[in-house]
Amino acid sequence: MSDERPVHLRIPGPTPLPPEVRQAASGQMINHRGPEFRALLAEVTAGLQEVLATRHDVILLTASGTGGLEAAVVNTLSPGDRVLAVSIGYFGERFAAIAQAYGAEVVPLAFPWGAAADPDRVRQALRADPAIRAVLVTHNETSTGVANDLAALAAAVKEEGRLLLVDAISSAACLELRTDAWGLDVVVAGSQKGWLAPPGLAIVAISPAAWEAQARARMPRFYFDLRRAREAAQEGSTPWTPALSVCFALREGLRRLRAEGVEAVWARHRRVGRVTREGLQRLGLRLVPQDERTASDTVTAFWLPDGADAKAVLQRLRTDHGVVLAGGPGQLAGRILRIGHLGAVTEGDITPVLEALRAVLAPHVPAVR
Amino acid sequence: MSDERPVHLRIPGPTPLPPEVRQAASGQMINHRGPEFRALLAEVTAGLQEVLATRHDVILLTASGTGGLEAAVVNTLSPGDRVLAVSIGYFGERFAAIAQAYGAEVVPLAFPWGAAADPDRVRQALRADPAIRAVLVTHNETSTGVANDLAALAAAVKEEGRLLLVDAISSAACLELRTDAWGLDVVVAGSQKGWLAPPGLAIVAISPAAWEAQARARMPRFYFDLRRAREAAQEGSTPWTPALSVCFALREGLRRLRAEGVEAVWARHRRVGRVTREGLQRLGLRLVPQDERTASDTVTAFWLPDGADAKAVLQRLRTDHGVVLAGGPGQLAGRILRIGHLGAVTEGDITPVLEALRAVLAPHVPAVR
Repeated sequence: MSDERPVHLRIPGPTPLPPEVRQAASGQMINHRGPEFRALLAEVTAGLQEVLATRHDVILLTASGTGGLEAAVVNTLSPGDRVLAVSIGYFGERFAAIAQAYGAEVVPLAFPWGAAADPDRVRQALRADPAIRAVLVTHNETSTGVANDLAALAAAVKEEGRLLLVDAISSAACLELRTDAWGLDVVVAGSQKGWLAPPGLAIVAISPAAWEAQARARMPRFYFDLRRAREAAQEGSTPWTPALSVCFALREGLRRLRAEGVEAVWARHRRVGRVTREGLQRLGLRLVPQDERTASDTVTAFWLPDGADAKAVLQRLRTDHGVVLAGGPGQLAGRILRIGHLGAVTEGDITPVLEALRAVLAPHVPAVR
Repeated sequence: MSDERPVHLRIPGPTPLPPEVRQAASGQMINHRGPEFRALLAEVTAGLQEVLATRHDVILLTASGTGGLEAAVVNTLSPGDRVLAVSIGYFGERFAAIAQAYGAEVVPLAFPWGAAADPDRVRQALRADPAIRAVLVTHNETSTGVANDLAALAAAVKEEGRLLLVDAISSAACLELRTDAWGLDVVVAGSQKGWLAPPGLAIVAISPAAWEAQARARMPRFYFDLRRAREAAQEGSTPWTPALSVCFALREGLRRLRAEGVEAVWARHRRVGRVTREGLQRLGLRLVPQDERTASDTVTAFWLPDGADAKAVLQRLRTDHGVVLAGGPGQLAGRILRIGHLGAVTEGDITPVLEALRAVLAPHVPAVR
């Protein structure tokens, strides 16, 4: 790809970084046990709390988002605990696999890929099995571009008095998410999604009830022990050396998010999501979400038209148009493409994507010709 | 601290970054499943193999060094396995604590803080207890500034046919370290130490024998599963989104290390270590290592003179001289200070540190007045 032409990185994270964030990532190293880091951690934590709408603890872990999901599991559960794993796609299955790897008894509640989870079925499953201690839910399923109705799911789980662990990796700082008001116990996010920062930090919000569970949970943990992280945070540090460059970038990203305003950020993602879906439909392309009302506003998945080869299409988009999209994970590989529209994204960023798709897919879609 | 005055960050990592590395850390995001990342991972892996002197697998994990230690443990051991934990300080104890957290039966072999481990005692311990499967060793103990004779320790462990897991976090890319020639099974390093990069990546080298152990090991793991990481690496990627900015920086750091030459890097650290120790001794300060021949060439620990308060000294060094040093961890807190001299460091970088120490500690050391 030519260096001169702009690249449109439109995968569901990492997202393109604003210039000020890139500048921040190049900051010189500091003592991670000194006063500069203490000030940074205080500012970042306050920003994370504001965006996640929580007054409770938010912990930074040096890890990918998946490390944050592991932290959520191993800090709240014991081997043998029954866990309801609500899954609507690839990342829901991953969350369940983590719980399984650490010895939880996973009760799967899987919905078809492309559908959202039905809160009533979650409620029924919990009523039918009072031994279930915790529920795993994906807020926004990156593999299918479906957003769950997290408020309704949380209401069902809380009515039944169970712990709710939420994968909000591709939703936090993008979609409406109210940690305290909705009663979410653990919320996991990742720096490379809505936060305008590079990957490398997992963000974990923890409710008082989750801390109570933490004190009893017996799954083995060391690196991801949230109690150690909280103790260090209370002294303005982290138990292990943090990814400082990513912290610098995240601080800058949070400043920009707070300046825009959290509700405005949610509204912007709603607008961009709608523009993306409408554009694809005008091209005659079919969305993966079965019900458009459940379509995600951070990632749009669409079916490849008959005769279009995923690898060849991705390659041409990239080489001829500088547009970088993602393929499908797991069972959807080769059958769908995905457009990420989260982070520092506006409606205008979608235009070159739609133009490139029109050019590359035209031979395959009658409506486009 | 004034913004105009240079800061001398001389803690045992993170280390000051060269301008080209900072520039690299500000790179725009890329698709971590695309061709640019595939090329980056190939180049970085080749560089890591060269510096670690291994022809076998080297895996990148998005984590602090401690996450790499956890990966070493959980990928090679099963609950109940007997493990000899050779400890000469704070970080040796941490390695043992990780094994314990995951259910290993830890057989401690602790030497006094300030001493190095005796290879003969390691050999005896292994002969006395044939059920011990693996040995944990810290190459360079950052808390006391003592470097173990890793070649001799490895020879003892290999003679007895046990698995050897090495914490080389503050030695790799600084001190002589020959992974294959010495028969090291797992070697763990961290990007913020000798590698001229920011924190955020753990580096794990794995021998064929360690892979055999991996296939049988039953400690629970998901995020740190090295098999998943190897499978992804074979396709030019990582199982979870990697800390891209840190990868960009590490690539640049490795280019500089390889241009200098690994043996030249080791020799430079030896020179700087000697200059540091000689300078402290001229100031009348006493080193923590009991035998100077075991003193580390990446971090020097020295006893605070009577009447000197650690916090006040660190504060004055920082405020009046722009020199940032580290205090003592664990049982050494308040009693020692530590100078980090690893990464992009030369003899000249030690001069301002010694001058600042002379100025601040003069009232407490008769020889200095």
